[in-house]
Amino acid sequence: MQKRIVVNAENRIPFHNAADDCIGTGRMGLALTKEYLEQLKLVQEYIGFSHIRGHGLFCDDMAIYQEAEDGTAEYNFTYLDRVMDSYRELGLAPFLELGFMPEKMASGRQTVFYWKGNVTPPKDYARWTDMVKALLVHLCERYGRSEVVTWPVEVWNEPNLCGFWENADMQEYFRLFTETFKAVKSVDERFRVGGPAVCGGTDEIWISAFMEYCHAQKLPLDFVTRHHYTTDVPEHVGHYGYVNLSEPEDGFANLHTTREIIDRYPEYRGLPIHITEFNTSYIPNCPTHDTNQNAAYIAQQLSRLGDDNETYSYWTFGDVFEEQGVPFTPFHGGFGLVANGGIPKPTFWTFVFFKKLKEKGCVCVYRDEDCVIMQKKDGTFCGVAWNQNRERTGRELDVSICLPCIGGRYCVLTKTVDEETCNPLKLWHDLGEPASLSEEQLALLKEAAVPMTASCTAEAGDAGVEVTFRLQEFGVVYFECIRAERKPDRGYSYERAIRN
Amino acid sequence: MQKRIVVNAENRIPFHNAADDCIGTGRMGLALTKEYLEQLKLVQEYIGFSHIRGHGLFCDDMAIYQEAEDGTAEYNFTYLDRVMDSYRELGLAPFLELGFMPEKMASGRQTVFYWKGNVTPPKDYARWTDMVKALLVHLCERYGRSEVVTWPVEVWNEPNLCGFWENADMQEYFRLFTETFKAVKSVDERFRVGGPAVCGGTDEIWISAFMEYCHAQKLPLDFVTRHHYTTDVPEHVGHYGYVNLSEPEDGFANLHTTREIIDRYPEYRGLPIHITEFNTSYIPNCPTHDTNQNAAYIAQQLSRLGDDNETYSYWTFGDVFEEQGVPFTPFHGGFGLVANGGIPKPTFWTFVFFKKLKEKGCVCVYRDEDCVIMQKKDGTFCGVAWNQNRERTGRELDVSICLPCIGGRYCVLTKTVDEETCNPLKLWHDLGEPASLSEEQLALLKEAAVPMTASCTAEAGDAGVEVTFRLQEFGVVYFECIRAERKPDRGYSYERAIRN
Amino acid sequence: MQKRIVVNAENRIPFHNAADDCIGTGRMGLALTKEYLEQLKLVQEYIGFSHIRGHGLFCDDMAIYQEAEDGTAEYNFTYLDRVMDSYRELGLAPFLELGFMPEKMASGRQTVFYWKGNVTPPKDYARWTDMVKALLVHLCERYGRSEVVTWPVEVWNEPNLCGFWENADMQEYFRLFTETFKAVKSVDERFRVGGPAVCGGTDEIWISAFMEYCHAQKLPLDFVTRHHYTTDVPEHVGHYGYVNLSEPEDGFANLHTTREIIDRYPEYRGLPIHITEFNTSYIPNCPTHDTNQNAAYIAQQLSRLGDDNETYSYWTFGDVFEEQGVPFTPFHGGFGLVANGGIPKPTFWTFVFFKKLKEKGCVCVYRDEDCVIMQKKDGTFCGVAWNQNRERTGRELDVSICLPCIGGRYCVLTKTVDEETCNPLKLWHDLGEPASLSEEQLALLKEAAVPMTASCTAEAGDAGVEVTFRLQEFGVVYFECIRAERKPDRGYSYERAIRN
Amino acid sequence: MQKRIVVNAENRIPFHNAADDCIGTGRMGLALTKEYLEQLKLVQEYIGFSHIRGHGLFCDDMAIYQEAEDGTAEYNFTYLDRVMDSYRELGLAPFLELGFMPEKMASGRQTVFYWKGNVTPPKDYARWTDMVKALLVHLCERYGRSEVVTWPVEVWNEPNLCGFWENADMQEYFRLFTETFKAVKSVDERFRVGGPAVCGGTDEIWISAFMEYCHAQKLPLDFVTRHHYTTDVPEHVGHYGYVNLSEPEDGFANLHTTREIIDRYPEYRGLPIHITEFNTSYIPNCPTHDTNQNAAYIAQQLSRLGDDNETYSYWTFGDVFEEQGVPFTPFHGGFGLVANGGIPKPTFWTFVFFKKLKEKGCVCVYRDEDCVIMQKKDGTFCGVAWNQNRERTGRELDVSICLPCIGGRYCVLTKTVDEETCNPLKLWHDLGEPASLSEEQLALLKEAAVPMTASCTAEAGDAGVEVTFRLQEFGVVYFECIRAERKPDRGYSYERAIRN
Repeated sequence: MQKRIVVNAENRIPFHNAADDCIGTGRMGLALTKEYLEQLKLVQEYIGFSHIRGHGLFCDDMAIYQEAEDGTAEYNFTYLDRVMDSYRELGLAPFLELGFMPEKMASGRQTVFYWKGNVTPPKDYARWTDMVKALLVHLCERYGRSEVVTWPVEVWNEPNLCGFWENADMQEYFRLFTETFKAVKSVDERFRVGGPAVCGGTDEIWISAFMEYCHAQKLPLDFVTRHHYTTDVPEHVGHYGYVNLSEPEDGFANLHTTREIIDRYPEYRGLPIHITEFNTSYIPNCPTHDTNQNAAYIAQQLSRLGDDNETYSYWTFGDVFEEQGVPFTPFHGGFGLVANGGIPKPTFWTFVFFKKLKEKGCVCVYRDEDCVIMQKKDGTFCGVAWNQNRERTGRELDVSICLPCIGGRYCVLTKTVDEETCNPLKLWHDLGEPASLSEEQLALLKEAAVPMTASCTAEAGDAGVEVTFRLQEFGVVYFECIRAERKPDRGYSYERAIRN
Repeated sequence: MQKRIVVNAENRIPFHNAADDCIGTGRMGLALTKEYLEQLKLVQEYIGFSHIRGHGLFCDDMAIYQEAEDGTAEYNFTYLDRVMDSYRELGLAPFLELGFMPEKMASGRQTVFYWKGNVTPPKDYARWTDMVKALLVHLCERYGRSEVVTWPVEVWNEPNLCGFWENADMQEYFRLFTETFKAVKSVDERFRVGGPAVCGGTDEIWISAFMEYCHAQKLPLDFVTRHHYTTDVPEHVGHYGYVNLSEPEDGFANLHTTREIIDRYPEYRGLPIHITEFNTSYIPNCPTHDTNQNAAYIAQQLSRLGDDNETYSYWTFGDVFEEQGVPFTPFHGGFGLVANGGIPKPTFWTFVFFKKLKEKGCVCVYRDEDCVIMQKKDGTFCGVAWNQNRERTGRELDVSICLPCIGGRYCVLTKTVDEETCNPLKLWHDLGEPASLSEEQLALLKEAAVPMTASCTAEAGDAGVEVTFRLQEFGVVYFECIRAERKPDRGYSYERAIRN
Repeated sequence: MQKRIVVNAENRIPFHNAADDCIGTGRMGLALTKEYLEQLKLVQEYIGFSHIRGHGLFCDDMAIYQEAEDGTAEYNFTYLDRVMDSYRELGLAPFLELGFMPEKMASGRQTVFYWKGNVTPPKDYARWTDMVKALLVHLCERYGRSEVVTWPVEVWNEPNLCGFWENADMQEYFRLFTETFKAVKSVDERFRVGGPAVCGGTDEIWISAFMEYCHAQKLPLDFVTRHHYTTDVPEHVGHYGYVNLSEPEDGFANLHTTREIIDRYPEYRGLPIHITEFNTSYIPNCPTHDTNQNAAYIAQQLSRLGDDNETYSYWTFGDVFEEQGVPFTPFHGGFGLVANGGIPKPTFWTFVFFKKLKEKGCVCVYRDEDCVIMQKKDGTFCGVAWNQNRERTGRELDVSICLPCIGGRYCVLTKTVDEETCNPLKLWHDLGEPASLSEEQLALLKEAAVPMTASCTAEAGDAGVEVTFRLQEFGVVYFECIRAERKPDRGYSYERAIRN
Repeated sequence: MQKRIVVNAENRIPFHNAADDCIGTGRMGLALTKEYLEQLKLVQEYIGFSHIRGHGLFCDDMAIYQEAEDGTAEYNFTYLDRVMDSYRELGLAPFLELGFMPEKMASGRQTVFYWKGNVTPPKDYARWTDMVKALLVHLCERYGRSEVVTWPVEVWNEPNLCGFWENADMQEYFRLFTETFKAVKSVDERFRVGGPAVCGGTDEIWISAFMEYCHAQKLPLDFVTRHHYTTDVPEHVGHYGYVNLSEPEDGFANLHTTREIIDRYPEYRGLPIHITEFNTSYIPNCPTHDTNQNAAYIAQQLSRLGDDNETYSYWTFGDVFEEQGVPFTPFHGGFGLVANGGIPKPTFWTFVFFKKLKEKGCVCVYRDEDCVIMQKKDGTFCGVAWNQNRERTGRELDVSICLPCIGGRYCVLTKTVDEETCNPLKLWHDLGEPASLSEEQLALLKEAAVPMTASCTAEAGDAGVEVTFRLQEFGVVYFECIRAERKPDRGYSYERAIRN
């Protein structure tokens, strides 16, 4: 299939690109581990997110809440410091999710996940708010108050699901939210606090009720949070689940209802929405996550999610994750941008490419369902294109983009991630799907997980520069047009060098 | 063009592969620099040579030979230790070339190169031999005698050229050789000493005369050294020189005469020959060195040089080199496997691939002018193929190799280095041939300098496994057949994951 | 107090120094964490143990034992590989302790420790032995059979205590031992297997019964294991426990009974005894562990434990440890040689010093209750001296050692660890005992945690060299006498340099 | 000797502390070497200078100035980029010294130093100014104009000495200065340019004449530079030179005359003076540099040099230096703060201590000939004291400082550098003054080259806190008083831990 784009340099297309704002993570206790931190380091080197959000801050493996023999509360920040120090070192601020419940403080025994997060309300709200305040006071002392008050605070996770909040009890959640909101603000008014962190598809009920509640209580809410997954219900087979991808437009439409619900309230109009989790599938054992198809699907998401939302946090940066237990194999359909062993998956590069669109004072000059194009401060152009499909169709796109570059010589650079050029999952499959990777296999998989870089020289004519490339199915391509006046050293001839 | 090979597993083809034995280097004083050591580290990580050889051990920038006010000799090993410590750390032993002459010890003023190595005989041979002995004694003390006596010792460099040895005075060289030979042996009989390190094309004269001299003097010579370059005389334009590549067979034939000359003497029959320098062109500003053509040409060399020679040392590992001055640009036709900035050139990968042929107890089962194939200890196969031409002809090779793998599932892996997949010179050219690389340009060039890794699954039939790939002109391909019985985890379906 | 030693160079004193053979660790799951691995790296760089032993291999956080929906056993080696890879990278082999019980395999609910290790027998011994065999087969595949069969295997931990083995049921333990012993040997006869890993003070009962059982069953036992702690019962106050140190001779006498019990059986005479845990106190919150007194006490232990035992494993290398919960402060009386944050405790240096006694072909020429002296291969001497007391008495030792060095000039080097020179605990106390260390505080604590190095010049007279130093109470001193003929550079005068 | 100081918290003592502004270096070509960069990295980690200044920018080993066959000028920035990249990475900006003369541009053959810097005027001033402009334009392109224009530019080095400027020809220097000044300003007016970089003791003649010249020419000079060494003429013996230290007050008085000469001109009044070199001795083989005496002498210098001067640049950061040839031994009286091998000399710590006086918003509350005391923003105190003497006298100082700390508990910290605690030169001497250090010797020397850290607890009484310490002869002590309210964890007793 042919696709031809002519870019007009006068265009200024709205495009809020928050690809690098926030990233999801497995529970906080896992942030103590070396593999987790190595994967996060890789992600930060190539993408550089600003915030990180995950569950488990108050779970018992973090050991924050303790009680003395006489029942007096004691706070242990040994592990918290370790985790936060690691985040700070990697340039990350936490997007603080307050949850789940320490066993000793919990009113019930219900837990979620392999790692048994207690999801019942506190048996004593004063203990909960004391702990929240102690936590924030400690963080302010250690990391500086003016810094810490910029860390967003979200109350709990997906209380609209019975699995995450006992009985999905809405009134109890509102109580938790209100008590917590006030506790946080009592430490410092500058903290921004939000909720209700619900999963998608419940906007009419939970978001509406939450907004109505806040409105009635005159709560000066700082932001609203929700999640966004885009598959149907998985079919489970053995350790894995298989899904069908949703029509993207359905998802965007659903997101827009949240915007509309909020904007009905004059005092909340325009309040930031943070999508504190998104991905294709919502299960950590969905093989789709490791594919090139996922990379292309997410590319389109990144081109659109900023339309209604302030930030959107891909769930998750890496595959150190235990919600359904410990994975048996390096590729197991985990949420991560990076597979265990430190192998970037195709979707990793989607984020790298969108991050590049934010460099060098770029402004958007073109955007459609397959492509975003930016003009850089120096007048040249870069962009990302993708070939997304819910099913495999065999469609290839021959893309031709006419960029209004002014006269001169240019280097047209492409980086291609598709099933042929950057597909570690296939190599792993070809190697027999080994559960334990040898050093040699791991090295090979990393070699097979880099984009293909290619270049050509273009002279800008009257119509500028024509950039052309083929997008394989499920391919994602980053392209860039770089001014490259030739300044050959005295006597140097490339043509003679290569015998042309 | 089609090329079809059927491998017989019973074959045992002689193939002496010393690709990783010795590597050349710019003058020793450069080994103090950071850029040099970083390039060498890269080379050692990927290839891992055993020895390193270059000029300049006794040149004044190494500061070894000093004289007190009263003329007493003093030896300064400060820099020598620093260089040798670096080599040891990187797993290298020196192939010691004794030369050139310290200014204060020299009988004349003639120098060679931008860095002005004095190429005249000592004014006092006793001073020379005292220095040689002091050097070896010091090395033995610092690095252990049993280790140091294994380091080969070569006397001078290319004395057959007037530029390297005043008047190319053969009798004077023989004197230097004899005095040095005796001095070295007086420190420890176990040292192996050789010469005459002549450039190619002079075998009949210099090698013959040298052998005759040794024979007459009853010198128990340990090995013979010579060089091997394979181009005609360069045409110089500005800072650069352009060459035509020689017919490879002419070079191999010339090398064979050296073998024959030596073997005429019963006492020297079979004496090791070390090619202490080889490359295509013999000038450090020949753009050919940076090309894919060079990589393919050298691949054939590596498949043949072991036929008559014990070792052969590519000249050089990196582009920190000053013989004709300091290069103006990162790609400037330097000898190195690595360009300045740490960018692997295509030929780097040729060595990486030949090194892999030595792993895992490989034996050779097939060798022709385009290809070497090895059988690994576990019965599987790997090999290197190349598409070499002295001129660009447009020839592509469609290679098909039938490997006698026994029944089962295999992963066929290829790593391709050709003008499309691994060609940093082209990207640099497309970028405008910049002299000063920005960090971003350097990163791009490194991304463009890695082989393309691809794989497929093969089921061995009665005829084994058929490996097929296309060799672009000047391409080099490493291929490997890896046993890969599939052991899918419970419920895992690759086909469903990728929606096939 | 004066102490004078005259060393006779002819002496050859038996001294089995296994200070660096084996080291203890917190539960294996903690080996996934970064802080753990950083502390272990520090320990390996300075001491370099050969083996590591701890609990928790089969506990659920390692996730090895899983069951499918239909109850089929599944083994997950994802985390095991990660831990073992880390150990191998740091030069360590595991001393494999098989335990505790996976929840799903356990016959009961009893657990031990904050981290809830299940301490009940398997509900089905076949499941247990299948798992043990699967584990060993996997390790052999991944790390090489010839390597893995050298890793010692110990069955369970302290079954003589009700806390560690339900009801301390001896017959049940013997069953576990026998089944496991046979299972391990069925994988490879070369594996060495032992037990019963009992705590001290129970020799007459448990060791006797165990030996009698093995004898009766004709079990070809490979070694016997036990523990060795040297304090009375702690007094608990808040998060801590305070102890009195035992008279060392009582402990050595107790250890000797184990030797005697074993040697009563002709078939087991001389069988290796491994002390798979020792320390002063047996609780992980005993402030004594962090003191200089501990360092001096352990110095004496290291000088004696080899008399009856093959190896003895200090419990533990670092303070990443959770048996009684997560520590609240960096110094909290943990077992570790290293405090959290990577601060070496005084006892760390005791091990460093004893390790140095093993270098350079040393043989023992003197040993008493305060001192060990070795002669190095080159004829010079080194040693360790300590000033140990169960209580603070104010005793200082002025040590004078006459070493029979032959004539010449020597450098006498001392490294001193005492309350004045190397006492991070005191600085932490002076800083107010902070729970969360700032970067600056941590840097200060590390600066305060290094031995004081001093030197002087000595000319050997007829009586050799006289080494003198003061041992503060609880001090440990390493001393070394290094041949140091002065070879001043031409014109250099140290005396003029320092204006003496 | 007793020394008692009572600090009044109301005091605000003028103290311009520029200890960390600029540091000297061996010639720029040496900045390519690994040892140089490792030493510089150490210095930057501990001290963190802002600028670096040395000779040799235009010397031929940097290869900047080249000529084509037809004599056309060509500029080669390959090595310059490498050096500047390294500096930028280490947080340094160059204090650009323009000199010496490329051989091909020089009017004569006279050279200075072992490394043969040509010190004659250009044969063609236009070539010189073209080169200067090309250099600055290139730097602006690579490192950003707004950054590069902040780098100070100094014209030549010590033209008042015949060795450094042919015939010490003053009029020729003025010409060089004027031409260069104008050339630099023509690239960007914002560049700050100064001179005449004379050595000390020539103020009346050269500084006066230079100021008069600039005044007459109406040159808008940006700053004045000179050097400052404080010893008499060395006595040379073999490879070394021995000196007597000057009376410090004589040096300060001499510096003040420069200030006065400048201030006579209304248009130049208050113009910054940069001491672009200072040290005790001005020869690179003066053993004094390696001593504790040097550290104490320089401490006093650092307490006073800011009185009349904007910056003062210690000559040099490290011992990679070749002016008198390559050193034979690690300790050889080099200028460096760091000895070869990366061993900090005592003077290194003097700079570390003065750097600490700049942290945390310190203001000076006391200063005398032995001591500087600062109050930190939080109200606590820190300071440096030294025991300086031109000769060894045996004087010890028992210092007692009464600091007006407000009530509460404090930790009093001292770091001591004296002949007993931090004296690697002595250990090297005791080891026999080895020329080649083994790894083990090097490790020992580094261990012997760290300050002794000690602490105690103090309760502030009515008179604040009394800090006492003994200053050995030639000792330097950093002290700090840190608020340290004790917050013991529940149950923790330090006294019980240490059995007090």
